[in-house]
Amino acid sequence: MPITANDTKRKSWLEVPDNSDFPIQNIPFGVFLTKENVVTVGTRIGDYAIDLGALQQLNYFEGIDLTDDMFMQDTLNDFISDGKKTWRLVRNRIADIFDETNPQLRDSTKDRDIVIFNIDDVEMQLPVLIGDYTDFYSSREHATNVGKMFRDPENALLPNWLHIPVGYHGRSSTIVPSGIPVHRPMGQTLPAGHDTPVFGASRLVDFELETAFITTDVNVMGENIPTYEAEDYIFGMVLLNDWSARDIQKWEYVPLGPFLAKNFATSISPWIVTMDALEPFRTKGPKQDPTPLPYLQTKGKKAFDIHLEVSIQPENQEETIVSKSNFKYLYWSMAQQLAHHTSNGCRVNSGDMMGSGTISGPTPDSFGSMLELTWGGKNPLKMNDGSERKFIEDNDTVIIRGFCENAEVRIGFGEVSSQLLPPFIRQ
Amino acid sequence: MPITANDTKRKSWLEVPDNSDFPIQNIPFGVFLTKENVVTVGTRIGDYAIDLGALQQLNYFEGIDLTDDMFMQDTLNDFISDGKKTWRLVRNRIADIFDETNPQLRDSTKDRDIVIFNIDDVEMQLPVLIGDYTDFYSSREHATNVGKMFRDPENALLPNWLHIPVGYHGRSSTIVPSGIPVHRPMGQTLPAGHDTPVFGASRLVDFELETAFITTDVNVMGENIPTYEAEDYIFGMVLLNDWSARDIQKWEYVPLGPFLAKNFATSISPWIVTMDALEPFRTKGPKQDPTPLPYLQTKGKKAFDIHLEVSIQPENQEETIVSKSNFKYLYWSMAQQLAHHTSNGCRVNSGDMMGSGTISGPTPDSFGSMLELTWGGKNPLKMNDGSERKFIEDNDTVIIRGFCENAEVRIGFGEVSSQLLPPFIRQ
Repeated sequence: MPITANDTKRKSWLEVPDNSDFPIQNIPFGVFLTKENVVTVGTRIGDYAIDLGALQQLNYFEGIDLTDDMFMQDTLNDFISDGKKTWRLVRNRIADIFDETNPQLRDSTKDRDIVIFNIDDVEMQLPVLIGDYTDFYSSREHATNVGKMFRDPENALLPNWLHIPVGYHGRSSTIVPSGIPVHRPMGQTLPAGHDTPVFGASRLVDFELETAFITTDVNVMGENIPTYEAEDYIFGMVLLNDWSARDIQKWEYVPLGPFLAKNFATSISPWIVTMDALEPFRTKGPKQDPTPLPYLQTKGKKAFDIHLEVSIQPENQEETIVSKSNFKYLYWSMAQQLAHHTSNGCRVNSGDMMGSGTISGPTPDSFGSMLELTWGGKNPLKMNDGSERKFIEDNDTVIIRGFCENAEVRIGFGEVSSQLLPPFIRQ
Repeated sequence: MPITANDTKRKSWLEVPDNSDFPIQNIPFGVFLTKENVVTVGTRIGDYAIDLGALQQLNYFEGIDLTDDMFMQDTLNDFISDGKKTWRLVRNRIADIFDETNPQLRDSTKDRDIVIFNIDDVEMQLPVLIGDYTDFYSSREHATNVGKMFRDPENALLPNWLHIPVGYHGRSSTIVPSGIPVHRPMGQTLPAGHDTPVFGASRLVDFELETAFITTDVNVMGENIPTYEAEDYIFGMVLLNDWSARDIQKWEYVPLGPFLAKNFATSISPWIVTMDALEPFRTKGPKQDPTPLPYLQTKGKKAFDIHLEVSIQPENQEETIVSKSNFKYLYWSMAQQLAHHTSNGCRVNSGDMMGSGTISGPTPDSFGSMLELTWGGKNPLKMNDGSERKFIEDNDTVIIRGFCENAEVRIGFGEVSSQLLPPFIRQ
């Protein structure tokens, strides 16, 4: 049997720090800009960014059927369109190239100078052109918490929630990679006790701890794909911060859902971790009761054991971890979300992104938003610098991290980190 | 003063049938495919499609600053990015080229053979790559009708409606041009009297009579544009049929809004009629009471007098007109919609599309959906062939037409026509 990229015995000739999210068993995909202003598709091992466009030009992918400029592009969409078989061949080849026993690149200083960059010397870009972005609402704990606060505490979960992976369309144009700061949005709100709304800076800016998956070309318009095929169409996952303005949301969201409360910014981690890399961390999700309708039924382990954590870093201060959650808490799986999404014939294309919805766990310290962690601002969180937070304050940086770990290997996402700037004031 | 494209005294040397939507004063923009499999940006006069890529190659746009391949593309996005000044120069030039007094193209059989096609010999494509699609909900009559049927008849209009142009995100991947048939969607619904949902073909497929506007690059993320600048960023308009599955919608839409009930298909007319062509048809919209907040206030005439009508054509039968409405009934203007959309810093790009929401007028025969026309199916509509319709039946074709008209000129949109096919059954 050939050695795959996942083989935990593999070591790379590139140095990988202890506890790195990016051992040679990860091989995520992203897009970066070099100091020479070259944009390329790349991967990461340890603290090195690797230029796959240059590797291809130097013939390291010989024997794999790829178009000539597959990696000399500013998005991964074409590569993702090529499908699972190609993703595997390329990922296994990359693992082989960087395997400590392989001298081909290791011993070529000339090639190494062209291909390998220190991670601090590149600027990560959005990895895909996102045609359509959907955000689900698949954490039972989150939906219950929000229902208790905003609607009826006795009937927190709406009647459809246990039957449908509820979702809605988000905005693609304001999805940005980690590192891009975000302005506090202006907007219309109805202050408590007022009869008429006001316009001004949102006072209740929040994060939402999410992951997202990125698809290949799934279907033609009008056709659907079943749950048992759905995972074949998922390329990989990223971390996602679904920035939210709670006061804008509360006033605008009936009856068509959140709009300006969400579409000012969505931040994602820049490296797409492949489903193949996550495969060893499959686990069972929560029991589904009532049993979903047949078109949503699945067999086997459809959840993944991904540790998630959120920190807030006040300006020039140390971070405080405010939440620890796990992807496996989600009630609806990605396979169910994608099958549901196409059940009406909705077309899904390469590079489309689907968010999980806020991932809240069962305990109060695992809730995935300030709204839930402070219970609507009633119980402020204590920061390590002595300050308190009800929601996110100007110049705070919100950092989401995620990783899988077992006795043999750690596969991580790195982080999505973004600072909240004061409102933009038009001159 | 130079003669502009709008001069109503102009005549074209191309024949224009009486009552055509496309006199030389219109000059809309679209994208078409020729029988030789060439895709090009084009315009239309009378029943002729005109290849703007070929016109550019033949130097007819000399003196206008355009990139060499501006019109030899499969979308209008780049042209729209060039901004209002360029749109005007090009539109005026086209009017000059086809003016009956101009012999340049008129008398060159060789050039005419390359440039001009019978409209029946080309296949219209989507005119733009739509990055993000937003749908508003700006007809007071429609929002009131829906509120009466689905919520509380006494408080039909929700509290935010008179203060915000309510909108939500739609799905770009399933926007198709006129002529593309649409499958009846499958989906999850809760039949009346049932405790648990079922999965099957939607029984309540509906049209929604809408228009949409297409923007140029509006802003950078984080910044907003005010109402008094908003119209400068609108390139033009199309007709839109927002296909809707009412039974799926009713079950899924709380709390995040419509999703699979809408995203199986959205049909648009293929020719974008420019705001310059519509300029003579400005009119006042409804009085806004209460006065909107300052960021939504406008001066002058912001509505347009666009006659709209919807027909249903049962298979192999004649059409029946089921609704006559007008764009001017909309409560919120496009300027208000766009300013609101960017008020939180949401980025809007070239080729983004924003739907009006269903355009219902004040009288029952001007309602913009079967839901309203038949009042939830209670009052079926009589077709000319003797049959009745509560909603749209398999193999029916829904046709939306729109035009502006005064004593001197008629500027029309043509039509968006699409047939509803039976559900797709996976083999």
